Amino acid sequence: MDGQPVTPRGYRSVARNMGLKDGEDDFAAVVSEVPARSAAVFTRSRFAGPSVLLSRTAAARQSSRGMVVLSRNANVATGRAGAAHAEEVRRRVAEIAGVDPEDLVIGSTGVIGRPYPIESIRAGMDELSWPFPEADFDAAAKAIMTTDTHPKCFSVRCGPAVLTGIAKGVGMIEPNMATLLAFFFTDADIPADALDAIFRRVVDRTFNALSIDTDTSTSDTAAVFANGLAGPVDHAGFEAALYACALHLVRMIAADGEGAGKLIEVRVTGARDDAQAKRVGKSVVNSPLVKAAVHGGDPNWGRVAMAVGKLEDETDIEPARVRISFGDLPMHPEEPGDALLARAAAYLSGDEVVIGVDLGIAEGAFTVYGCDLTEGYVKINADYTT
Amino acid sequence: MDGQPVTPRGYRSVARNMGLKDGEDDFAAVVSEVPARSAAVFTRSRFAGPSVLLSRTAAARQSSRGMVVLSRNANVATGRAGAAHAEEVRRRVAEIAGVDPEDLVIGSTGVIGRPYPIESIRAGMDELSWPFPEADFDAAAKAIMTTDTHPKCFSVRCGPAVLTGIAKGVGMIEPNMATLLAFFFTDADIPADALDAIFRRVVDRTFNALSIDTDTSTSDTAAVFANGLAGPVDHAGFEAALYACALHLVRMIAADGEGAGKLIEVRVTGARDDAQAKRVGKSVVNSPLVKAAVHGGDPNWGRVAMAVGKLEDETDIEPARVRISFGDLPMHPEEPGDALLARAAAYLSGDEVVIGVDLGIAEGAFTVYGCDLTEGYVKINADYTT
Repeated sequence: MDGQPVTPRGYRSVARNMGLKDGEDDFAAVVSEVPARSAAVFTRSRFAGPSVLLSRTAAARQSSRGMVVLSRNANVATGRAGAAHAEEVRRRVAEIAGVDPEDLVIGSTGVIGRPYPIESIRAGMDELSWPFPEADFDAAAKAIMTTDTHPKCFSVRCGPAVLTGIAKGVGMIEPNMATLLAFFFTDADIPADALDAIFRRVVDRTFNALSIDTDTSTSDTAAVFANGLAGPVDHAGFEAALYACALHLVRMIAADGEGAGKLIEVRVTGARDDAQAKRVGKSVVNSPLVKAAVHGGDPNWGRVAMAVGKLEDETDIEPARVRISFGDLPMHPEEPGDALLARAAAYLSGDEVVIGVDLGIAEGAFTVYGCDLTEGYVKINADYTT
Repeated sequence: MDGQPVTPRGYRSVARNMGLKDGEDDFAAVVSEVPARSAAVFTRSRFAGPSVLLSRTAAARQSSRGMVVLSRNANVATGRAGAAHAEEVRRRVAEIAGVDPEDLVIGSTGVIGRPYPIESIRAGMDELSWPFPEADFDAAAKAIMTTDTHPKCFSVRCGPAVLTGIAKGVGMIEPNMATLLAFFFTDADIPADALDAIFRRVVDRTFNALSIDTDTSTSDTAAVFANGLAGPVDHAGFEAALYACALHLVRMIAADGEGAGKLIEVRVTGARDDAQAKRVGKSVVNSPLVKAAVHGGDPNWGRVAMAVGKLEDETDIEPARVRISFGDLPMHPEEPGDALLARAAAYLSGDEVVIGVDLGIAEGAFTVYGCDLTEGYVKINADYTT
């Protein structure tokens, strides 16, 4: 298992500009040459857009063989025209690739409530022809970016197979069931039911453990495609590989959070159960005051205590039993002196910050990922559409 | 009912510097000359400090006659010494005023996890003597400030009586049962049970409808004192007066949110019930993306849709029935054109922004209050303790 630039067999892709971004690629399609098994999870937003609605139906068949994505425009809250456009884009790409429309997952990401420049997209699709070139996952990862500052693509080996994941997402991110957009492609041969179970377990510990800003996108989609060309793989090994790949992408997304300067990892232990640990971790990693203190390198551990304490329904959390640390440096209940606070400030000035919270109740544990809150986040989001 | 500088009869106060702030007043006490009835609500944080614990016991008697507050240091997570200090401060002030310690509510606000400079506080208290001067509520409001940019004090008449409220709070504010610190003093004569019921109803629609940054303080305390010197009042009239006073303070707090440039009011209507309307309002007013868009004057109503949609458990919310507006300007589902978006941008450039969300389900309604998210919030909180 490593991060070398190897790619799974049998995938073809194309990335183009179709008039949504200024010149940069804003369209990507990746399709397996042969039938594939698949699993997918989606946003649970009540405002989920037509792309998510179409893809849910396709995903239920567990045999999608690829995806098509348009970025910079989410095609959400765009009425009947938006629904018709999503269907048209998927149908046209499927026609070109010679597959069934329901074999394709369609993803959208970007501004909500604006119609597609559909004429320009139609003209762009007319220039496509099958076979697409051999898959270029880096180019696909780049085409699906919005305010990301760099593409997110990672590959791992798993026995005879290779697994490549691409993802995007830097704002409006507290996914539930998936992150904004993440796609995994493998040539492993693995039964659909096993693939689905493994994928959901991995997503729960990776993408669902990520929060940039507590906002949940209307377009979250994560899918895995397995075309089997490399032959059977050990399931535990495949799960480990998928977890490693997903975690790497999650850490890349957190570190590239809108305006972010630091990756924050909150490791909660000693909880009643894993679910409580996750609630505590989310409360800490989502606290704007904790995030701002980390940004400023301020060892203000009292804000971590505040963020734990505000979960008022967790009545088994006793302040005196809670232990709080920055990296290996104990803060509470040790009442750190100036020397220790100075070391903590130095620690917080690094690029990756681990906040430890042990609740002292039982063995539940969960780790969540996020980023600091900076002036840059505000600047990026103060005039996004205008 | 008006905002003229009148004060209720029979209250005395003192404000001093006792070494917590650099020179500014950081200590305030307000005490009724005669016994009073009272009601109070507090933070539900699991990390509530000793001041809250002491005041809860006092509040249960419904006959507190005043308060004492130290600001700039929350005296939270300070162990046994912190608990002893809180008790000592309250006991000493009660002794000077000739009242029972349980007649006083004690409030604290500021940094968490730092011991009090207790010697300097003792020296300061030694200089106090009863009777305090006639109450100066503006001075008390100033002494309880932390990062507030101006004191928050407001008076209303209620028949023969006067009601004066003071409050502070600009960060770590999404109260539940109370805001950071808010105190109301009246000379109305009103039975304790009625006072308690009225106070809780008013707090629910005012302080509990306020969110600056989703973080809940460990020190939230709100109390009302009624010494009866002006004689009986009409209860409905008193509730209206208390509501007007509390709402005015809430709007002052929201507009003075850390780094804030604008007051945001989210009016949710057409909900299944008021509780659902409140959840929707909180989701919108807490969304960092909505807050940043308002800051930038960006009519990005899609983010309001996103914030409604992320309440995934509200399965009766149908996107097509939801109406979203900025002031009187309809945004969704009207698909506003460029002219309307330009008017919306102009509207959002004002100091007060009303976001309307009608869910189209039933008659439930709730209005919540917050502020925009600015670079200033991040700057203030990046290096608060260092």
